[in-house]
Amino acid sequence: METSAPPALRLGPDAAALTARLVDIPSVSGAEGPLADAVEAALRELPWLRVDRLGNNVVARTFLGRPERVVLAGHLDTVPVAENLPSRLDADGVLWGCGTCDMKSGVAVQLRVAATVPEPNRDLTFVFYDNEEVAAHLNGLGRLAARHPDWLAGDFAVLLEPSGGEVEGGCQGTLRMLLRLPGRRAHSARSWTGENAIHAAAPVLARLAAYRPRRPVVDGLEYREGLNAVRIEGGVAGNVIPDACAVTVNYRYAPDRDEAAAVAHVREVFADCGVAEFVVDDHSPAALPGLSHPAARAFIAAVGGEPRAKYGWTDVARFSALGVPAVNYGPGDPNLAHKADERVSVADVLRCEERLRAWLTAPPAAARP
Amino acid sequence: METSAPPALRLGPDAAALTARLVDIPSVSGAEGPLADAVEAALRELPWLRVDRLGNNVVARTFLGRPERVVLAGHLDTVPVAENLPSRLDADGVLWGCGTCDMKSGVAVQLRVAATVPEPNRDLTFVFYDNEEVAAHLNGLGRLAARHPDWLAGDFAVLLEPSGGEVEGGCQGTLRMLLRLPGRRAHSARSWTGENAIHAAAPVLARLAAYRPRRPVVDGLEYREGLNAVRIEGGVAGNVIPDACAVTVNYRYAPDRDEAAAVAHVREVFADCGVAEFVVDDHSPAALPGLSHPAARAFIAAVGGEPRAKYGWTDVARFSALGVPAVNYGPGDPNLAHKADERVSVADVLRCEERLRAWLTAPPAAARP
Repeated sequence: METSAPPALRLGPDAAALTARLVDIPSVSGAEGPLADAVEAALRELPWLRVDRLGNNVVARTFLGRPERVVLAGHLDTVPVAENLPSRLDADGVLWGCGTCDMKSGVAVQLRVAATVPEPNRDLTFVFYDNEEVAAHLNGLGRLAARHPDWLAGDFAVLLEPSGGEVEGGCQGTLRMLLRLPGRRAHSARSWTGENAIHAAAPVLARLAAYRPRRPVVDGLEYREGLNAVRIEGGVAGNVIPDACAVTVNYRYAPDRDEAAAVAHVREVFADCGVAEFVVDDHSPAALPGLSHPAARAFIAAVGGEPRAKYGWTDVARFSALGVPAVNYGPGDPNLAHKADERVSVADVLRCEERLRAWLTAPPAAARP
Repeated sequence: METSAPPALRLGPDAAALTARLVDIPSVSGAEGPLADAVEAALRELPWLRVDRLGNNVVARTFLGRPERVVLAGHLDTVPVAENLPSRLDADGVLWGCGTCDMKSGVAVQLRVAATVPEPNRDLTFVFYDNEEVAAHLNGLGRLAARHPDWLAGDFAVLLEPSGGEVEGGCQGTLRMLLRLPGRRAHSARSWTGENAIHAAAPVLARLAAYRPRRPVVDGLEYREGLNAVRIEGGVAGNVIPDACAVTVNYRYAPDRDEAAAVAHVREVFADCGVAEFVVDDHSPAALPGLSHPAARAFIAAVGGEPRAKYGWTDVARFSALGVPAVNYGPGDPNLAHKADERVSVADVLRCEERLRAWLTAPPAAARP
């Protein structure tokens, strides 16, 4: 019976050729089934891996008894196709098409390492997950973390998201808080009988305008924080002194602060500004880059370059929440992600594959002179 | 042919009895026809009056060659009936029902003066208009002012709106202006690459919070101004440094300032606050009370009490715009207007009728010692 066989993936060629094959199996968020089937089938051919699956999330692990375990993770889904499939390789060695950059080239590198490194210097976990490009509650990595956190355990994780071949360490946390200002309603023709809640926001905005964000260095990376109003709303009607005004602030904070410290900081900044109520609207914690871990140090040495801080929030924070320091490192220019002219340089994909293999096949640090 | 005759109004009894009759001819805004017909028919019985009509607006005037002309004006319409018709007179001499207070008792006083003062000491203009309780562009007084300003000409006007039997002089102007703050959009994880338009509103709100409104005395009445934010809006998304924020301010100003001076004042207050654009959103000018006019002085002397400033905007401003100083003076507690338990004291209606008649039948001031 061949009727239900998944599209065959040949892991033998290089990661660039494999990227083109992966791109040509469309996998828009929510429709990752055929690609997940193909990935699972290919991994099951590799006897040194144990393969598990949850929905369209596939996890493959070695169990070699190494003292360290590293995780290589990537998402299978893409944003909607924009008349940019099938893939096309041009004369300059650039592969065009939906998902080439974000992030089937990274997935190809994962699969090539899985197929070509049967005896890595560290135990390896390969994670392929779905629904990264859509609402957070659908995210496959989040579902794995909730259902099978043991599948994601490790000492260090690399997400192969496009990062221009640079190591982006950890990520900043993002906290949104609502600050409610008090007031008392009145007719605006008799304003002295009320208390204007919008005027009461004056000290909050002055504090924001004067705020000097920190630039802490964590694990050798400089982070730039920010505290900003992202919304303000107040007013009842054109002839009414408003009794309510709310300022939503967004605090982007470095990974040397945890969630409680971030909330405490915002409360402290506005402690004497007459705020009636603070409400946490949304909160995603920061992720430590973990660059001081031996596995991470070896990784940095192997891939080269100068690690930089990641300011935006990414899925590395999901690993951090599980106690696994994580970085982004993958082929492709992140500015090309989600664009109709998405593309990746074949040379970049091959370089990433080589560097990861070098890291994972070098003699362990302890054994080096 | 009697089939199309309007409901008959008998102007003979006192204003209190007439109020009950007027209340029992429903005239919710837009449905004033039957009441306007009845008023017109009753006025046409009075040979000393010339009666004109525009839609459901009725104007009746004497032409006695007096050196002064005063206008007595009132609206015929009511807010929607709230199961409070027909009217009911209780044992305490209080008449209950929709429109008793706002303002068929005032209309009854107008009609009683029209019917009982055939030779007034000043030429009289009686104005009965429609659609006062709904959108300004429907207002019958506004339509008369636009189509037949000569019908409204005079030296002084009294609007018989409920004012608790006190004289409320003129009214304050109301100006709404939008103040736009500038900014430059950016991802909130890299806030230093943008400019936050909400933060830019800080000096505007600080200026508002510190603002000390004037309390000028005009024509002997103290006015209390106010400058207030009535709306603030800013924000693009929870992770975006906003490039736009708008503060709507409402300036309530005394009638010693005209429209241009009011706009200039707001611009001056915020001159150094970084406002990118000022936009006039809505503007209704102030109305002078005109209490220094001889007709007004005689009126105050006749009705007694201490005139007070009117803070809210009222239709007296429409007279002021035509060059006719105007006051509110009528029976009924303005706080009962528009309520289901709307009511008026019969004694108050009779007192108002008597005082107006006294004013309009006394020997002219010039003839007094």
